[in-house]
Amino acid sequence: MSAQFLSDNAAAVHPKVWEALRAADEAQPPYDNDALSQRLDAEFSALFGREASVLWVATGTAANCLALATLCPPHGGVVCHREAHIEVDEAGAPGFYLHGAKLMLAEGQGAKLTPDAVRAVIDPIRDDVHQVQPHAFSITQATEYGLAYRLEELAALGALAKERGLGFHVDGARFANAVAFVGCSPAEAAGPCDALSFGCIKNGAMSAEAIVFFDPERAALARYRRKRAGHLQSKGRFLAAQILAMLEGDLWLDNARAANAAAAEIAGACGERLMYPVEANELFVRLSAAERETLRTRGFGFYDWGADAARFVTAWNTPPEDASALADAISGL
Amino acid sequence: MSAQFLSDNAAAVHPKVWEALRAADEAQPPYDNDALSQRLDAEFSALFGREASVLWVATGTAANCLALATLCPPHGGVVCHREAHIEVDEAGAPGFYLHGAKLMLAEGQGAKLTPDAVRAVIDPIRDDVHQVQPHAFSITQATEYGLAYRLEELAALGALAKERGLGFHVDGARFANAVAFVGCSPAEAAGPCDALSFGCIKNGAMSAEAIVFFDPERAALARYRRKRAGHLQSKGRFLAAQILAMLEGDLWLDNARAANAAAAEIAGACGERLMYPVEANELFVRLSAAERETLRTRGFGFYDWGADAARFVTAWNTPPEDASALADAISGL
Amino acid sequence: MSAQFLSDNAAAVHPKVWEALRAADEAQPPYDNDALSQRLDAEFSALFGREASVLWVATGTAANCLALATLCPPHGGVVCHREAHIEVDEAGAPGFYLHGAKLMLAEGQGAKLTPDAVRAVIDPIRDDVHQVQPHAFSITQATEYGLAYRLEELAALGALAKERGLGFHVDGARFANAVAFVGCSPAEAAGPCDALSFGCIKNGAMSAEAIVFFDPERAALARYRRKRAGHLQSKGRFLAAQILAMLEGDLWLDNARAANAAAAEIAGACGERLMYPVEANELFVRLSAAERETLRTRGFGFYDWGADAARFVTAWNTPPEDASALADAISGL
Amino acid sequence: MSAQFLSDNAAAVHPKVWEALRAADEAQPPYDNDALSQRLDAEFSALFGREASVLWVATGTAANCLALATLCPPHGGVVCHREAHIEVDEAGAPGFYLHGAKLMLAEGQGAKLTPDAVRAVIDPIRDDVHQVQPHAFSITQATEYGLAYRLEELAALGALAKERGLGFHVDGARFANAVAFVGCSPAEAAGPCDALSFGCIKNGAMSAEAIVFFDPERAALARYRRKRAGHLQSKGRFLAAQILAMLEGDLWLDNARAANAAAAEIAGACGERLMYPVEANELFVRLSAAERETLRTRGFGFYDWGADAARFVTAWNTPPEDASALADAISGL
Repeated sequence: MSAQFLSDNAAAVHPKVWEALRAADEAQPPYDNDALSQRLDAEFSALFGREASVLWVATGTAANCLALATLCPPHGGVVCHREAHIEVDEAGAPGFYLHGAKLMLAEGQGAKLTPDAVRAVIDPIRDDVHQVQPHAFSITQATEYGLAYRLEELAALGALAKERGLGFHVDGARFANAVAFVGCSPAEAAGPCDALSFGCIKNGAMSAEAIVFFDPERAALARYRRKRAGHLQSKGRFLAAQILAMLEGDLWLDNARAANAAAAEIAGACGERLMYPVEANELFVRLSAAERETLRTRGFGFYDWGADAARFVTAWNTPPEDASALADAISGL
Repeated sequence: MSAQFLSDNAAAVHPKVWEALRAADEAQPPYDNDALSQRLDAEFSALFGREASVLWVATGTAANCLALATLCPPHGGVVCHREAHIEVDEAGAPGFYLHGAKLMLAEGQGAKLTPDAVRAVIDPIRDDVHQVQPHAFSITQATEYGLAYRLEELAALGALAKERGLGFHVDGARFANAVAFVGCSPAEAAGPCDALSFGCIKNGAMSAEAIVFFDPERAALARYRRKRAGHLQSKGRFLAAQILAMLEGDLWLDNARAANAAAAEIAGACGERLMYPVEANELFVRLSAAERETLRTRGFGFYDWGADAARFVTAWNTPPEDASALADAISGL
Repeated sequence: MSAQFLSDNAAAVHPKVWEALRAADEAQPPYDNDALSQRLDAEFSALFGREASVLWVATGTAANCLALATLCPPHGGVVCHREAHIEVDEAGAPGFYLHGAKLMLAEGQGAKLTPDAVRAVIDPIRDDVHQVQPHAFSITQATEYGLAYRLEELAALGALAKERGLGFHVDGARFANAVAFVGCSPAEAAGPCDALSFGCIKNGAMSAEAIVFFDPERAALARYRRKRAGHLQSKGRFLAAQILAMLEGDLWLDNARAANAAAAEIAGACGERLMYPVEANELFVRLSAAERETLRTRGFGFYDWGADAARFVTAWNTPPEDASALADAISGL
Repeated sequence: MSAQFLSDNAAAVHPKVWEALRAADEAQPPYDNDALSQRLDAEFSALFGREASVLWVATGTAANCLALATLCPPHGGVVCHREAHIEVDEAGAPGFYLHGAKLMLAEGQGAKLTPDAVRAVIDPIRDDVHQVQPHAFSITQATEYGLAYRLEELAALGALAKERGLGFHVDGARFANAVAFVGCSPAEAAGPCDALSFGCIKNGAMSAEAIVFFDPERAALARYRRKRAGHLQSKGRFLAAQILAMLEGDLWLDNARAANAAAAEIAGACGERLMYPVEANELFVRLSAAERETLRTRGFGFYDWGADAARFVTAWNTPPEDASALADAISGL
């Protein structure tokens, strides 16, 4: 057998997304002047229960950086976790999009940011022109270790943002998985933030993420920046189509639930091996080199995570039998 | 009836591209590690008869700017025509990608750059640190007015580039149309340039352009910059698939020939009305406001071009009967 | 004899500036926390009759660019004359400081900007994300050809700025010469602008220019940007001292009047040879190559201005006998 | 009494520097075309025993950032200590000058960088486009805690630079103090580095630092970048004059020795209170709040360093009696 748990980022495209793509083939006004793109604001406003202004882009990196560029000037700083995707895996894109602004690195278990961790970064900064001043912070929901922020954690961060006048950004590459796990409404999950990178690509889409702004002025600014970054596609209707397909009938939540369920099943077999609770679709599992070799021999694909662990990621289309097989294989080690 | 000649930039996707997209659905290694992306260098090397290193991106703006960023440092300048797309229609993207480098504007009929026009820009520049020094120039093939550079024109520009140590970039959003018109080989058409934005989106693709570098070091540099610009899609196989489909059996040339033929038929009816020779798939036609109104009443869609003219653009899928109808309508004015 | 009319930009330092420098030697709090720097806001507020927030910097280029960076975002544009110093002689510094923003070039006699010239640039710009939108304009007072804007010209530009929501910057490298010529009050001369680069270096100082903001928020922003650009000198008291010495007893106007007077005397001898009226301390004089050679042989230093003219610049310390000698020499040609 | 140990960064200007400034008053060709600026390359080549290309600038921040910009592209990273001046006290200037490049933070006692500390930062970086790749490292000599790198430490770092292909920059704001302490030749001290910010301002100059490049191509690049950053002063002769005065008769070393001696005397009284060995002109001394209050009451000026310590900095002109008085006062606590 062969069962892949390498990542969700290159998984197949959901049939309903394919349908939506094909249905969007006929020529329409270019860029985001088509009927599909024009529906995004209303759909997300309904989803989140407040006025939302929404832009599509082709990658999570572009989504994150265009959002952050509206929250922090070139001479400012954005607090994020030391292991945040924007710090570790985006090739310095924030430095590019924010024109040299600084990522300020906070500590925290499981790549989760807390008000205390943010304060530990910003409180020592002298309020003078010699030091970069913080203007915003960014969290990843679910985190890079698959942990979901609870509503009270989000509320506490929102209170901090308000108290300190900081912008609040959510990198939601796996927002769906977090919402599915927490069981709250999307409105609650996005509650206190200013801008949300609403991920679709890891969740069944092909090439579209949504940047959701809860302030139309920031969205207006980001529209200029999107074009300037070469991210305004002329056949943008195909991106809007993907996003609308994800929202239609809550496909985004269904897909996330499927991925989460597969992860949960595997987690059940891991016991003490788990480095973090499994709250989304990623598992970090302590496994010796020999154990990993055994699993690979049996056809399971995954990444090593340092010398003594492995990372497994499920996706919307992980076959339940693959999850079961992996659970069995780990149990049997 | 309704016949659209607004632009080729939002036309439907060619059936063979759709096929290629569907065929690429199954998960593969992410980014450009998939088998399709890995084929690009070889395919373009064969096409152009010399070693080519190729990156996909989602827009022409990104293609142009990532290419230019390898040819000009932040403190340098790029000569282009005053009406070049990079100057007029990319929202300042070159300033962003090149970190403040300057576009130096040249004159020329039909948005065509000549060695003399380039010299007229760069010769007055003092060779001192007070003035931005030119590092490259960029032409659009076919130009923004649908003119195709001939081989001898390209050779003259290539000689200038070599003589002055300037990088040579081609914005080939409609490269296919120009090659189809000139009737030369792709190798000849790309002959003297350092980097080529090889357009597909206006020619039947959905969301993929190829940046063709004839120097692997520039390509290596652009790979970092692409990721940093948020243009490295995780399901990059879908972009590679589109580009490969365009090359397969010379679909790119067939599509361009179809668009050119439609334009030529309409051109035949325009006579003295034509502002420029029609050498690709764009027509700039002198038409009074009343004449334009008449055409619109009959169902033809197009953009005004100033007060006394209109722009018509054909596409790979312009129905021959639509082209004929437009030709008849113009003849009958 | 030897008489230099090359430029005012490297002239000797005025004795009162030397005195002020020496008087500032004793250690004080660093940066702009010293008593001298702290006086700048009040002195300039008095000079201009409204609240001014003032920063010193070491060059006109830094003054211009730090000012402009508060008036235009990275994705915007600044209208200036095609021959403006910021376009022609600052090595692309605006592109650097404004993170890729675009200079939009206007036409006009004598490098003077008019409302019509600005409109000719901005009116054709489509209000969409594909084109860089104008956010400000910048004039040079006196212009690069030594012309002084009159109060009604400034008022007209101010009205345009207000009407179109554009920032209004004045590059006042030779602001003193213009004010001295026009004979208005400084308050009138700075009337409608948002930020003024108040030049001192060409007028008797060593290494200090003042950026005058008429909005404390812009000044606060510029303070961060100044440090970030490496322009916050730790012994800033020496820059403040120079600027205060220039203001003391209107030394800035006295110096400018001296330079203007020398220029006026020479102008009187030039008649039809003058390319532009002489309204400040620069003369552009039609002189054949042979005539220029004659003048040089007699010991006069100056720059050629193209093939058929020369540029002469007087300074605060141009010896009256040198001006007379040049006037005589030109008369005698 | 009143005795200041706040910082060396705002101390008075040395009489020989004043002399040199006055001697440079007469007009000369502008920018760095004057005779003084033209001497810099030769003087520093002699000082360092190898070909040096030298630019003056007005601040250490500009010196550091212009140097680094020649060693690292916008998409790269520069390793430095977590407490390096470029990271902590330059307002994000490296992000500005390097167009978004990243500072990568290393650990180490006393703000000193070791090859192991650099490796700990760069070894975990995957060699792929998702992570910012290191291109250079920067050390501060003497460090932010007043420690001097020994020749063998510099050699080890030089070997690492060569092995890994990394640029090597030295922030020498207090280079003189380190050389004076180590007792080596300047050539030895600068041995393995590519570019050195040679500090003068903290050591008796008014407003001039030298950037010393050991590769003329980097210097040529920096000349464009200096102008572009608004750091090319038209009366540059005054900056060159200061630097030449510092070199003349080894004034730079004499001044540093004086400052170091004052620091050493105070250090002798501090015993166990010292947080770091005193190898330059800075002392970090454990002192309770009450003890600090006592010292301040007696007229000593200094900064607190956290809750339980103070920083004292001596300068070239610290009166020996002030140093003795402080030593006595600390002894008597």
